[in-house]
Amino acid sequence: MRTFQEYQEKLKKMRKNVYIDGRLVGRDDPRLLGGQNVMGITFQAALSEDSQMRELATAVSHLTGNTINRFTHIYQTPEDLLKKQQMIRELGHIAGGCIQRCMGCDAINALYVTTYEIDCKYGTDYHQRLKKYLAWYQDNDLVGNAGQTDVKGDRSKRPSQQEDPDLYMHIVERREDGIVVSGCKAHNTTAPYADEILVLPTRAMKDSDADWAVAFAIPADAEGVYLISRPVSPNPRRELEAPYNSYGICDTMTVLDHVFVPNERVFMCGEADFGGRLALSFANNHRFSYCGCKPAITDVFIGATALVAEYNGVPKAPHIQDDLAQLEATAELVYAAGIAASATARTTPSGAREPNFLYTNCGRYHAGKNIMHEYDILISTTGGMAATLPFEGDWLNPETRGYLEKYIMRSPRISPENQHRLFRFIDDFTVSAWCGMEQAAGIHGGGSPIMEKIGIRTNYDVEGKKRIVKWLAGIDDSKNPQG
Amino acid sequence: MRTFQEYQEKLKKMRKNVYIDGRLVGRDDPRLLGGQNVMGITFQAALSEDSQMRELATAVSHLTGNTINRFTHIYQTPEDLLKKQQMIRELGHIAGGCIQRCMGCDAINALYVTTYEIDCKYGTDYHQRLKKYLAWYQDNDLVGNAGQTDVKGDRSKRPSQQEDPDLYMHIVERREDGIVVSGCKAHNTTAPYADEILVLPTRAMKDSDADWAVAFAIPADAEGVYLISRPVSPNPRRELEAPYNSYGICDTMTVLDHVFVPNERVFMCGEADFGGRLALSFANNHRFSYCGCKPAITDVFIGATALVAEYNGVPKAPHIQDDLAQLEATAELVYAAGIAASATARTTPSGAREPNFLYTNCGRYHAGKNIMHEYDILISTTGGMAATLPFEGDWLNPETRGYLEKYIMRSPRISPENQHRLFRFIDDFTVSAWCGMEQAAGIHGGGSPIMEKIGIRTNYDVEGKKRIVKWLAGIDDSKNPQG
Amino acid sequence: MRTFQEYQEKLKKMRKNVYIDGRLVGRDDPRLLGGQNVMGITFQAALSEDSQMRELATAVSHLTGNTINRFTHIYQTPEDLLKKQQMIRELGHIAGGCIQRCMGCDAINALYVTTYEIDCKYGTDYHQRLKKYLAWYQDNDLVGNAGQTDVKGDRSKRPSQQEDPDLYMHIVERREDGIVVSGCKAHNTTAPYADEILVLPTRAMKDSDADWAVAFAIPADAEGVYLISRPVSPNPRRELEAPYNSYGICDTMTVLDHVFVPNERVFMCGEADFGGRLALSFANNHRFSYCGCKPAITDVFIGATALVAEYNGVPKAPHIQDDLAQLEATAELVYAAGIAASATARTTPSGAREPNFLYTNCGRYHAGKNIMHEYDILISTTGGMAATLPFEGDWLNPETRGYLEKYIMRSPRISPENQHRLFRFIDDFTVSAWCGMEQAAGIHGGGSPIMEKIGIRTNYDVEGKKRIVKWLAGIDDSKNPQG
Amino acid sequence: MRTFQEYQEKLKKMRKNVYIDGRLVGRDDPRLLGGQNVMGITFQAALSEDSQMRELATAVSHLTGNTINRFTHIYQTPEDLLKKQQMIRELGHIAGGCIQRCMGCDAINALYVTTYEIDCKYGTDYHQRLKKYLAWYQDNDLVGNAGQTDVKGDRSKRPSQQEDPDLYMHIVERREDGIVVSGCKAHNTTAPYADEILVLPTRAMKDSDADWAVAFAIPADAEGVYLISRPVSPNPRRELEAPYNSYGICDTMTVLDHVFVPNERVFMCGEADFGGRLALSFANNHRFSYCGCKPAITDVFIGATALVAEYNGVPKAPHIQDDLAQLEATAELVYAAGIAASATARTTPSGAREPNFLYTNCGRYHAGKNIMHEYDILISTTGGMAATLPFEGDWLNPETRGYLEKYIMRSPRISPENQHRLFRFIDDFTVSAWCGMEQAAGIHGGGSPIMEKIGIRTNYDVEGKKRIVKWLAGIDDSKNPQG
Repeated sequence: MRTFQEYQEKLKKMRKNVYIDGRLVGRDDPRLLGGQNVMGITFQAALSEDSQMRELATAVSHLTGNTINRFTHIYQTPEDLLKKQQMIRELGHIAGGCIQRCMGCDAINALYVTTYEIDCKYGTDYHQRLKKYLAWYQDNDLVGNAGQTDVKGDRSKRPSQQEDPDLYMHIVERREDGIVVSGCKAHNTTAPYADEILVLPTRAMKDSDADWAVAFAIPADAEGVYLISRPVSPNPRRELEAPYNSYGICDTMTVLDHVFVPNERVFMCGEADFGGRLALSFANNHRFSYCGCKPAITDVFIGATALVAEYNGVPKAPHIQDDLAQLEATAELVYAAGIAASATARTTPSGAREPNFLYTNCGRYHAGKNIMHEYDILISTTGGMAATLPFEGDWLNPETRGYLEKYIMRSPRISPENQHRLFRFIDDFTVSAWCGMEQAAGIHGGGSPIMEKIGIRTNYDVEGKKRIVKWLAGIDDSKNPQG
Repeated sequence: MRTFQEYQEKLKKMRKNVYIDGRLVGRDDPRLLGGQNVMGITFQAALSEDSQMRELATAVSHLTGNTINRFTHIYQTPEDLLKKQQMIRELGHIAGGCIQRCMGCDAINALYVTTYEIDCKYGTDYHQRLKKYLAWYQDNDLVGNAGQTDVKGDRSKRPSQQEDPDLYMHIVERREDGIVVSGCKAHNTTAPYADEILVLPTRAMKDSDADWAVAFAIPADAEGVYLISRPVSPNPRRELEAPYNSYGICDTMTVLDHVFVPNERVFMCGEADFGGRLALSFANNHRFSYCGCKPAITDVFIGATALVAEYNGVPKAPHIQDDLAQLEATAELVYAAGIAASATARTTPSGAREPNFLYTNCGRYHAGKNIMHEYDILISTTGGMAATLPFEGDWLNPETRGYLEKYIMRSPRISPENQHRLFRFIDDFTVSAWCGMEQAAGIHGGGSPIMEKIGIRTNYDVEGKKRIVKWLAGIDDSKNPQG
Repeated sequence: MRTFQEYQEKLKKMRKNVYIDGRLVGRDDPRLLGGQNVMGITFQAALSEDSQMRELATAVSHLTGNTINRFTHIYQTPEDLLKKQQMIRELGHIAGGCIQRCMGCDAINALYVTTYEIDCKYGTDYHQRLKKYLAWYQDNDLVGNAGQTDVKGDRSKRPSQQEDPDLYMHIVERREDGIVVSGCKAHNTTAPYADEILVLPTRAMKDSDADWAVAFAIPADAEGVYLISRPVSPNPRRELEAPYNSYGICDTMTVLDHVFVPNERVFMCGEADFGGRLALSFANNHRFSYCGCKPAITDVFIGATALVAEYNGVPKAPHIQDDLAQLEATAELVYAAGIAASATARTTPSGAREPNFLYTNCGRYHAGKNIMHEYDILISTTGGMAATLPFEGDWLNPETRGYLEKYIMRSPRISPENQHRLFRFIDDFTVSAWCGMEQAAGIHGGGSPIMEKIGIRTNYDVEGKKRIVKWLAGIDDSKNPQG
Repeated sequence: MRTFQEYQEKLKKMRKNVYIDGRLVGRDDPRLLGGQNVMGITFQAALSEDSQMRELATAVSHLTGNTINRFTHIYQTPEDLLKKQQMIRELGHIAGGCIQRCMGCDAINALYVTTYEIDCKYGTDYHQRLKKYLAWYQDNDLVGNAGQTDVKGDRSKRPSQQEDPDLYMHIVERREDGIVVSGCKAHNTTAPYADEILVLPTRAMKDSDADWAVAFAIPADAEGVYLISRPVSPNPRRELEAPYNSYGICDTMTVLDHVFVPNERVFMCGEADFGGRLALSFANNHRFSYCGCKPAITDVFIGATALVAEYNGVPKAPHIQDDLAQLEATAELVYAAGIAASATARTTPSGAREPNFLYTNCGRYHAGKNIMHEYDILISTTGGMAATLPFEGDWLNPETRGYLEKYIMRSPRISPENQHRLFRFIDDFTVSAWCGMEQAAGIHGGGSPIMEKIGIRTNYDVEGKKRIVKWLAGIDDSKNPQG
């Protein structure tokens, strides 16, 4: 397993293909360090001196028997799923939010299960290719980015019907030694500080969409790859440094312009009828991850709400106690859905475990449904001060510092600096571009609530429930008019 | 195990102590048959020809090794908990609601765990007594009623502070061979068709409340027991019979007026510090039951909503599809909480398993929070017809029958009788005293949402969440003023 | 103006055409008295000794200059609208719910406005006919029932497309002196104790539906009229009589089987393009009425919730205070919408005022959206006792009375009888067929929330709002591709 | 009336007392121009060539008979209130949010009404002083900032109990010619670009708090005033300029350090019993303003949601239509509450009108309750693109511009620039520090929902509602135990 330093050294050596706000930049651009620092948590956890943390963050590869970072592991048992979920929640506490390395983990698990099924039907050898690739991926402790969401152009048309074929990622050319692909993956989190990009289809396909049914892995700096990036971080600090402000995240429009992918990195190539399976498998795994990370974020809401209530001198106010209970119920219902998805996980033909789709969708749905209410609670409890707090400079300016420290006083038990630090944190958490990104991620990341409602109802046994009612009501279908 | 017939024969032989609307009645009063019919489902399931059903509804006693009805079993494994939950949901489909036999099951499990802990502290022998009692209870396949909720009198006072000591069940006299108790348990479901009444304390006690810290079992027709009963059923039918209309339920004010309880049936007697433990243990088990039965009821909502939409000719209306997805998510989140409570169940010192209190509370909370919205969905989808449907007599009257059948027509594929039957069922389900009882039960049964919010927040690690935020924000408590 | 007695005497003389549960009954059937008692409130108010009440409940006819019951008045000013709204709320307090006489009032106002517009376009004389009819209606202080909702058969088909033409009320024959009509109006409240039935179309029509575009008035006992009725009341009392238990309501399927309507009572006859106008005009007036009556019902929720909290000894519990504030906000927002609808009422070409459609819909929408939550609050605050309260007979039975009075005690300041009376009232209010009817009415009466959402969005200036955003964002439509 | 230019010229001449992020800056600092541009809308409207706009934005002074800006007017009639509300909504459309000049308007109306009442009780001459001041204020078309919210220190203590007396604004010294005051007003919007600061108490006072019961006006650059400021704007643009991006807002901690106020500018000075009256009167007026401005903001949500749905090619998606109807109902219910507050406005002893406190609170409550849900709707409909959109620089960079324009394509009818502009706008509106400020303002501005719930319930006639229920239930208080 790698150290954080080794991870960053490798990033520095990669080909320059990251664009930010009009400029081509290196992977050591300061705006990209926040995301790397979050990734660092996953490397440090696996090498932690704390044995409980180490056990949580590592696993034994079923391919090689080596100890590997759990984020590179394929689920073999319900316990693997439970530990993944727990790991995300605990590392999420350190990050104060998304741990960012799930995407790769969710992608390799989806590929693992689906390539096996494609091979069964078509006699292809994607699964063997993938296992070989995975052994290397695990041994090198890589960070994988998942490129799933196509830009999709005209939403009323299928991939093959679009005027511009590139609006969904597709095979431009099939060569003996590989394929050439073009397209653009949007909302693509972590690409500028990932080692590998794992490309998956975004939806179900029909036969006519075969050229768009493609999955593969490429190095993030491969020729033809353009990472047009939007990094975001909590507000930078001048003197009042804090762990939260060392983090960041980055989304990209990941453009692939005639990128060559050698055969050994191609994991689906034209099997249109498996497009939906692979897309949903990734969605399922990713929604499962949300059952771990969203509770971690709600934990931050709980802690911040309780702390600001305490600092404001109203820790026992009944409406705040009630709000806290609501937050707690939200966190734990989502987490319970993940436990249920693990406990009832299916063993797939590949041998790997797949979390229960119904419960992962219920968990992610509940999280997405409640996220804005969680902000409402924290903002309501905080009062206006996080939003109207003078900038850090005024706290450092001797002319105004005295006034600010004098007038920030609420509880005599809290120092002005700690009082200031808490409001500053809540300012970052609720009154910043970073917060806007978090809200959008809370609603859309891994699929927005309407997608989960579709997921839930699509496979739900409504006919069985109708039969219950027909029985209770004494309704006999044979008495209906025939024809 | 008993047959349904044997169960009813025994009821008939019991001492007459049931009062309904001003009269002393036998246990074969027609108004009590609905509840017995629901109990019947549990006897039939255990003797079912369907081996899956039989396996679900029975267990092997850890006390005797005999095959017993699962409702008399003590949880030994997480699988026991999962099966209990699944059994409730499946039998709930047959009953179209509460299966009613959980209360006894939840009471014996709470007593099993708590008596062991009392004995450990006080050197008493309640646990041995209970095991002996339980072996007999299991072998005779008994139906236990749980009497927990005291009438409580002045809510601002503790048991021992009440003007009238009987406002909480208490020990009136301690004899060599047993105790004499008085009091009244309210909202007591199933007592008039139960074999045994299992009495538990309703709350935490202080030392001064020792005489009120009492738990025991008595036959439901013991001397001094008065069951003042309120039975309720769906509206009776004249010709349009249906399974749903054969059911019913009954609550009582269960008055114990100087009832003697022999020592071998006393399971707590003055150990005030275990009052809360036993009360909460029952609540925990009962909330766990809700994680199985509430999804069963939501399944009826799903089936009824989908069926009436189909009969109304709008099965694909988007707002109805959306409502169905909401119902499905509610059912499955509550069920997931039960699975999580099972999967993370604690092994108690007694050896029995106890579902995870946090998740049982989250599940019951979510159910209670949503129940009225579920009615809203079904009533909204149905339209007004269930509420304004002429009475059955008008369908049977030749003068009006033609008009009613002509004008009930909605979908040409549905016969007038089936159309009528569905509205009649929804009439029973949403426009009846029965419905009012179900709504109250949906909100209060097993503890109302505010009780679960208290349950959730009481033991929640809020301090741990504050620490997360302090760390993220760089807050150092040592910088606060001392003192 | 009539006395209540005169109203009832006239009812007794009407032709027997009311069916209840399989029997043809007279209008003095006890099950119909509850509804008449509610109507009685409107007669008594107009003749009240309290001058404020009298002023509220009467108006001066713009047709005759006579003092008339306000329920027979045509709105001439915003004040007329405000007084109508206030009258409904105040009389609703006496009735504990729906005052029931609005329907006729809303129907005559809709007819007044629409007949004028039909005449303007088609040169017909419906408006003069109606004015003549109205003068008679006002002078005789009549109770009008509005028959609007057709049974509608196959919802995917228009009136003229139905297999059975009677599924919407229609003209069967046009004679020199009048028309013959057939059909059935469903969910028809008050018909068995109304003097007149005012029939209105239920929806917009196309030219091919001309025979279904018909409006007229007939005596409620006209030949060919069958009132298949479903009366409902709070539970009857033996000794514990209370005003609430003297009330009731009744819905009918109102069948018209070849009923002759003389020309002077026909107010629309084939003008298909005005079908929607008249239907929506009635809906608008009726939703306006809800802005008065729903706050009255919420007032009962507020009073009952506050009183039961007081009787339970927790009047100051913060979560109950919060719930009360929610109820209050609901009542007053709905009422405010009615005030806004009055204050911005349009003067129609007929000279009469029409409440603002946007605000009546918003008000009714908000009421319908919240009604089940209001029940949730009251049931939650009450606890289970209203649902498990032994029947009245057990309170009268000397064997059990002592136990019940002893154990009902909660607050030492409240007598057992008053404590019992309050629970008995909440039992009627929340655990009865009457409650089920009220819930359905709360959701569907005057149009369910989805109908109001359609009403709101249909005429909303969304394009204007888009222009605001285009301007703010600097979007220039001329830069879009042409064609 | 002044031109926008005259307003800005005066600002430039003011004494430098504005601090931003550590530096003392002039009022022409670019970060303060956004707020001034919003104020500009109010000057331009009053001088508009559009006579309707002009009429809306001006009024005739009841003091001088001069035509004045409506923001400086004292309400004389319900129409004045309705026009104020309408003006705020329409100007809010131009600003895309808060029009910012209400605060001064709300403060002078509160002072007008309250000073009259103080004088009546104490024989003081505050009202005459104020009228003189107001005539000057109107004639000079001034912008007033309202300084109400004190920093409040320890929330469990009253003003006079605080360790540091400055934690509430108070009188430090009383001189013959005026008073000297110290303290700090927080969350103080617009102060750095206002002419005057109008200081009001923040809460009810007791006699011991008399020195804290103080109201007065000072120039915003008076000696001893320090404006420690936090300006915020939508993200600046390089080339894609848009009206929305020219705006901004600014909050300050407004420190008054021994500021002298001459007698003619002192409007309350020690009359502790009127502290609450003045505080609530301002709150009432300000909540009334929200009944106009919040609908304006919801209008932007409606327009943005509808437009992005159209651009995304799903304008008719049922769930979006439903969401739009929800937004529309929210906007119009809040607006209706304002109309109701105007239509039922009270004439105060001073002769001025005061909006109905109950309805202003209901309106503001409903707005605050729904604000986060409105964001949820817009973010959900937009999808992730507003949050992950590459920065403007990448659209200007020729290397990446082609990719971005190619891949932004959704509807073939929309140009890439317009598509980009809309996402850019929604980025500003939902993913920015500006958005965080708007969310906090949506919840807290004018009082958070819990404050309005307190406002509603404090004066609500709950006893009257209890009496309704007692009557309906036949409860006779005289039967309760006496004593």
